[in-house]
Amino acid sequence: MVQRQERQGMDFIAVDWGSTRFRAWSLDSDGQVRDSTESDTGLKAVTDGAFEAVLMAACGDWMASDPALPILMSGMVGSRAGWKEAPYCPCPADMADISAAAIGFDVAGHPAAILPGATCDDARGHADVMRGEEVQIFGAAELLGLTDAAICIPGTHAKWARLAGGRLTGFETHMTGEIFALLRSQSLVGALAEGDADDPQAFLDGVDHGMAVPVPHAAFAARADALQGRLPATSVSAFLSGVLIGGELAHRPDADETILLATGVLADRYAAALDHLGTAVRKVDAKEATRAGQVRAAAALWPGRVGA
Amino acid sequence: MVQRQERQGMDFIAVDWGSTRFRAWSLDSDGQVRDSTESDTGLKAVTDGAFEAVLMAACGDWMASDPALPILMSGMVGSRAGWKEAPYCPCPADMADISAAAIGFDVAGHPAAILPGATCDDARGHADVMRGEEVQIFGAAELLGLTDAAICIPGTHAKWARLAGGRLTGFETHMTGEIFALLRSQSLVGALAEGDADDPQAFLDGVDHGMAVPVPHAAFAARADALQGRLPATSVSAFLSGVLIGGELAHRPDADETILLATGVLADRYAAALDHLGTAVRKVDAKEATRAGQVRAAAALWPGRVGA
Repeated sequence: MVQRQERQGMDFIAVDWGSTRFRAWSLDSDGQVRDSTESDTGLKAVTDGAFEAVLMAACGDWMASDPALPILMSGMVGSRAGWKEAPYCPCPADMADISAAAIGFDVAGHPAAILPGATCDDARGHADVMRGEEVQIFGAAELLGLTDAAICIPGTHAKWARLAGGRLTGFETHMTGEIFALLRSQSLVGALAEGDADDPQAFLDGVDHGMAVPVPHAAFAARADALQGRLPATSVSAFLSGVLIGGELAHRPDADETILLATGVLADRYAAALDHLGTAVRKVDAKEATRAGQVRAAAALWPGRVGA
Repeated sequence: MVQRQERQGMDFIAVDWGSTRFRAWSLDSDGQVRDSTESDTGLKAVTDGAFEAVLMAACGDWMASDPALPILMSGMVGSRAGWKEAPYCPCPADMADISAAAIGFDVAGHPAAILPGATCDDARGHADVMRGEEVQIFGAAELLGLTDAAICIPGTHAKWARLAGGRLTGFETHMTGEIFALLRSQSLVGALAEGDADDPQAFLDGVDHGMAVPVPHAAFAARADALQGRLPATSVSAFLSGVLIGGELAHRPDADETILLATGVLADRYAAALDHLGTAVRKVDAKEATRAGQVRAAAALWPGRVGA
C-alpha cells in the first residue's frame, strides 16, 4: 500500500496505456515519481469498455488523496479500440500542438485527458501513425536538451522519427518486431532455428544483408545458408533479427547521431548495428522519456497545477 | 482406371513431388501425356518415410505395364526431409549438369532418379536454393525456344531466375507468399482487412510503395492509410499483395521481358505489375514447363529410352 505521506505534493497521474501493458505514475510538480504501478491490463485485457474501472482499480488510492488531481493518458487508450478516440495530430507538431489536440473529459470528478498520437504523410501520400511514442520522443528530447534529433524506438512496430527545431517533422514505422516474431515462430525459415542466443557476427551479417536487398529476400538467406551448412541453427535467430533491423537502417534518417529509446538486448543490438555503420548512439530509458513527455504535456494542459 | 492401350509407347514417369502436392504423369517418348494423377500426398503427408508406398499407390499401374519404365522425380522429395537427399547443383548449370547430379536408385526394379535442385551464391556470399523450380525454368525455356531469359515463378517462396546461354546463372528467392499469408492472417495490418477482393489501383499503389521503401515499412502503410480513411478495409489485402510483389520487383533482373510461370489471379497480378513498369510479359503454364523440363532431364539420364 502507498503511504499517505508519499502523496504530498503529487501533482498529476501519468498513464501510459498500450495494447498489452498498463503503466501509471503519480508525479509531483517537478516530474519526480512518488509512486508507480504496472500491469498487463492493456487494451486487449479490457472487456466491455471497462476502462474507468481498470483505471480506478490501479490509481483509485492516488485519486482519493486529492479530488482535483488531473489524469493524463497516452498510447492506444486513445485509439478507436480504446477508451475515447483522440484523432491523430498531424506533423509537423510540437508538444503544445499535441497537448492542444488532447481529448478532455471527467473521471469521477477528476480532469482527465487522452493525448492524440501523431500522423504524417510520406512523399507518395501514404500515412504513418503513432500513439504514445510521440510523448516519448518529446520526453527524450527534453531529457537530452535537444531540439534536433533522429530518434529510434525499437519494438513490435519500430519508429524512426525526426525532430527539427523542437517539432516532430516526420517518422516511419517498420513492422520489425511483429514480422520477426512471425518469421521466427511460424515460417519455414524459423523452422530451421534453434533457440534465440546472440551471435554478434551473424547479427551484423544479417544487418548488412537486410540493408542491401529486400527483407523478404534477405530473410530467406537464413534458410539457404543453414541448409548449405554456412549458418549454425543456433545463429539463425540472430541473423534474422539483423535482417529486419537492416531493413530499418537502409531507410533511416540522415543524421550523425541516433537517440535510441531502448534498454536490454534490443538496445544492445541496435547500438551494435549503428556502431557498425559508424553512427553515434545515445540511449535513453523509454519509461523515463515517457514520464518527461507526460510532464511537458500536463504542464501545457494544466499550467496552474503542473510546473513546466 | 487407365486403359491398357493408353500405356503403349509410354516411356517414363515424371513426378513433381513437393511439400504439399504430389503430381505424376506417364509420358510417351515425345513428352506427350498419356495419363496423369495428382493428390495432396506431399512430403508433409508422408509418414515414417513411406515414400515408395505413396509412389506405388499412385503410379503402380503404370509401373506394372512395363517393368523397365524409368521414374524421374523433382522437387522437395530430394530434400533432407524427403526420400533421398540430392545435394543442390551449383550454378551456373545447364540441364545436363542438373541431370548428371541426380541421385539414381531402384524402385521395385525400375530405374529411378531424383533431381538435385540448384544453388547459387550472391555478391555477399549468401546462398540461395531451389528444388523443382530449376526443372520448370529449363522446361519453360525449351517451350519458348529461349536460351537467355529472366524468369519469375510466383508462390510461397517466389523465384526470380536468370538464364544465359542456356545456363541457369543465378536466382533470388523472395518469401512473398509466406510473408503475405502471415501478415494477412495474423498481423495488426491484416486485422484491418476485410476479404481478399481485387482492387487494381490499391494493388499498384502497393507495388510502387513496396518498390520505393523497405517492405516492413511499406506494409504498415496499409494500416495507417486504413486508419486515416484513405484505404478501404476491402482493399487492404490487394495493397498488401502489391507491397510484397513490389519488394521483388525492386530487385528483379535487368531485362526487357519477363517469363512468368503462373496462371490465375497471381499471374494476372504479376503481369499487371510488370506492365505498370513497362516490362513485357510472356506467361507459361507451370505444369507444362515442369513436364517439358522433366522430358529434357529424362532424355539426358536414359538416352536410349526417352527421346530428346
